[in-house]
Amino acid sequence: MTGHTSEADAYRDDRAHVFHSWSAQRALDPVVVTGGLGSTFWDADGTRYLDFSSQLVNLNLGHQHPKVVAAIQEQAARLCTIAPSFANPTRSEAARRIAEVAPGDLSHVFFTNGGTEANEHAVKMARLTTGRHKVLAAYRSYHGATTGSITLTGDPRRWANEPAMPGVVRFFGPYPYRSAFHADSAEQETARALQHLEEVFMFEGPHTVAAVILESVVGTNGILVPPPGYLAGVRELCDRHGALLICDEVMSGFGRCGEWFAVDRWGVVPDLITFAKGVNSGYVPLGGVVLGERVYETFAERPFPGGLTYSGHPLACAAAVATIDVMREERIPERVRDLGERVVGPRLEKLRDRHPSVGEVRGVGLFWAIELVRDRDTREMLVPYNASGAAAKPMADVVAACKARGVWPFTHFNRVHVVPPLVITEEELLQGIDAIDDALDAADAYVA
Amino acid sequence: MTGHTSEADAYRDDRAHVFHSWSAQRALDPVVVTGGLGSTFWDADGTRYLDFSSQLVNLNLGHQHPKVVAAIQEQAARLCTIAPSFANPTRSEAARRIAEVAPGDLSHVFFTNGGTEANEHAVKMARLTTGRHKVLAAYRSYHGATTGSITLTGDPRRWANEPAMPGVVRFFGPYPYRSAFHADSAEQETARALQHLEEVFMFEGPHTVAAVILESVVGTNGILVPPPGYLAGVRELCDRHGALLICDEVMSGFGRCGEWFAVDRWGVVPDLITFAKGVNSGYVPLGGVVLGERVYETFAERPFPGGLTYSGHPLACAAAVATIDVMREERIPERVRDLGERVVGPRLEKLRDRHPSVGEVRGVGLFWAIELVRDRDTREMLVPYNASGAAAKPMADVVAACKARGVWPFTHFNRVHVVPPLVITEEELLQGIDAIDDALDAADAYVA
Ligand SMILES: Cc1ncc(COP(=O)(O)O)c(C=O)c1O
Ligand SMILES: Cc1ncc(COP(=O)(O)O)c(C=O)c1O
Repeated sequence: MTGHTSEADAYRDDRAHVFHSWSAQRALDPVVVTGGLGSTFWDADGTRYLDFSSQLVNLNLGHQHPKVVAAIQEQAARLCTIAPSFANPTRSEAARRIAEVAPGDLSHVFFTNGGTEANEHAVKMARLTTGRHKVLAAYRSYHGATTGSITLTGDPRRWANEPAMPGVVRFFGPYPYRSAFHADSAEQETARALQHLEEVFMFEGPHTVAAVILESVVGTNGILVPPPGYLAGVRELCDRHGALLICDEVMSGFGRCGEWFAVDRWGVVPDLITFAKGVNSGYVPLGGVVLGERVYETFAERPFPGGLTYSGHPLACAAAVATIDVMREERIPERVRDLGERVVGPRLEKLRDRHPSVGEVRGVGLFWAIELVRDRDTREMLVPYNASGAAAKPMADVVAACKARGVWPFTHFNRVHVVPPLVITEEELLQGIDAIDDALDAADAYVA
Repeated sequence: MTGHTSEADAYRDDRAHVFHSWSAQRALDPVVVTGGLGSTFWDADGTRYLDFSSQLVNLNLGHQHPKVVAAIQEQAARLCTIAPSFANPTRSEAARRIAEVAPGDLSHVFFTNGGTEANEHAVKMARLTTGRHKVLAAYRSYHGATTGSITLTGDPRRWANEPAMPGVVRFFGPYPYRSAFHADSAEQETARALQHLEEVFMFEGPHTVAAVILESVVGTNGILVPPPGYLAGVRELCDRHGALLICDEVMSGFGRCGEWFAVDRWGVVPDLITFAKGVNSGYVPLGGVVLGERVYETFAERPFPGGLTYSGHPLACAAAVATIDVMREERIPERVRDLGERVVGPRLEKLRDRHPSVGEVRGVGLFWAIELVRDRDTREMLVPYNASGAAAKPMADVVAACKARGVWPFTHFNRVHVVPPLVITEEELLQGIDAIDDALDAADAYVA
């Protein structure tokens, strides 16, 4: 509390004055969150929730990590802000650390305030580097809410924003469980998805394509882990056609997949990586683009036509420096890989066996989806694509059952995602999955 | 300093790893800024500069205002971040305070991380509220770097980003000193600029126009203060044609013009105000849109299709609450109005009389431009529009002369802007203007 308002005032002022993202405003009834620690947060009534969403999958170090809090406080005492044209020790340090953990020759960092601005600027860089205009983007993706990024987005959040940026062309990515290519194995899915992308290149005119953008592991739209060989194949296609590969690691980066960046799992080096969220756990708004020599050289002698008042904000950079240091000290990527393989994977497999509503579980690190169906044979989704209101009731039941068990879940369409903070204890992790296990009885009730 | 790097390392790491806004990268030689207090900042060698730019015209309360620093530190200790879907006391308080200082019925706040995201979301709101697509935007304007905002922008930063968002139509705003309408008085400029805008409406089809967007007082592109009656006339035109009026107050808002919002000076109430910068002096990235009932009702029962991971970030909101409180306690808007009228205006008039290179001085509050010319009769600009390199040498000379006198100026094209922190002491203000006065001898040398 700030000392100025009571919790009741906080609720009243929210309803009167805060306009919320992605929502119809009038019926909202938000929980008033007043505190958090580690993987737990609590509301004004003292109800505690185990955070299985990491807020919006950004809170990788959990709430109030003391070292990150201290770094913010120290930087606030030293120098809160400085314009992007200056050099600043904290900004330099953050950029160096990000370059250190980024793959290949990706060693230059353009800072933004979040994910959408990062993707906007990456596309700008790709277009000017190649002198081409088209960008190939995937269905089942989210890249942000500003005009460029929402056009790149392949989910319903785009619809009300169209027409938006010209030059975006859509392709299907791999998704073995619901293959667009009628594949019956992961290998076949990879081969056919690459053949499909190659055909899109061909029909669009390869010389018109500036870039392919994709989420290294698709996040909100399903935790779609690319099957073996897919990312390497896309890299090869881009090289062959002179297009750049932009990997959006806003959600998948900074340890979430058990690697610094998800692409590291497959040893693929994109031309541009966009990041945000995990880079500093969202303690201060920060995002950016990491780029290699080819893009750097484009703007070595010629001005880069992009920028933001708060590019490389010192307070945000201080949080990034501390976050990366903590991730190294606590060996977070290794820990996440271990927890994913040893705990989450096996435990979710069991849960799938127990619940007829579970069609598939999939994931990597601490980035997992439980996909719910009405019928395992037809794979009919538990709720239709983009369902709302009454049609979404089965999922609302699952959410309510999770919350009743003290777990705050991340759900999307017909899926429950398991995306807790990367510092979650093994005990909390099991406790949360057990709660979801119980809650899925609500989904089973809808199975034909 | 962070304790990890020396200043030399900061410079080296910047050159190796920080990709800077709006610049060719290789030749950059940034000053390493290590600290600041009030209206002064200093570099690693201990050289001190009087900040006559407020960084990017965001640092309204100057560097390191103790109350804002304390508010950030306290919020960091309490709760750094929480997702936008929750209510949070600090976010509620910030929204309420902004609603309190906003004009008319503007009482709902959608938070973003900065100015460009604010304009992107305002346009989204206007399009969906009206069901129309076109947006009328001014030449000589800057609205941000993402696809939508850069298309709205009427300065050269747009060029390398085109083609971008469809549906933007350009108009000329009033600018008595270089009238696009061949007017010879402020009254005539207003009348003709409104007639021009009316014609643009007519030729575009008024029923296709969702909004007019403009900077209430144009910032970077010239500190163009609208002549009497202009804003009211635009408001009337919008009403008559059912279009919304979006006032971009990212730079002009929060005291800069001696009012909470610049529109207050003329008693005009837009449908949407976008803000950033001064709302919290940029201590933590924050921006947003303030909207009234008409827009709110559009999204009362139907989802608003926009959002950001960090919308309403508690740390940024804590800085906004403290900033607004300080502005009230220290009566900043009143102070700024007084300093503008009593000190800056008269002092700049004298400077104009002394320097043949000064074509016009204009402004309001602590938002002033000194427009430099080669010839007062022809009004030929001291350097051509968008000049760089050798062609820009006269301005580079002025900048160098300011810095040599310990003043960090804000310059754009052929103008020196006087845009210091709003907390600047009267003594510092006079000292800075005196330095500019001296520096303008360098400009006089180019007068024919
Ligand atoms: C993969 C991905 N890209 C981009 C974004 C947009 O980031 P932001 O909300 O910070 O603009 C998100 C946000 O969820 C994301 O998940
Ligand atoms: C009037 C105006 N609008 C929008 C912006 C963009 O703000 P940001 O850089 O925070 O995205 C600026 C930045 O200078 C501005 O001056």
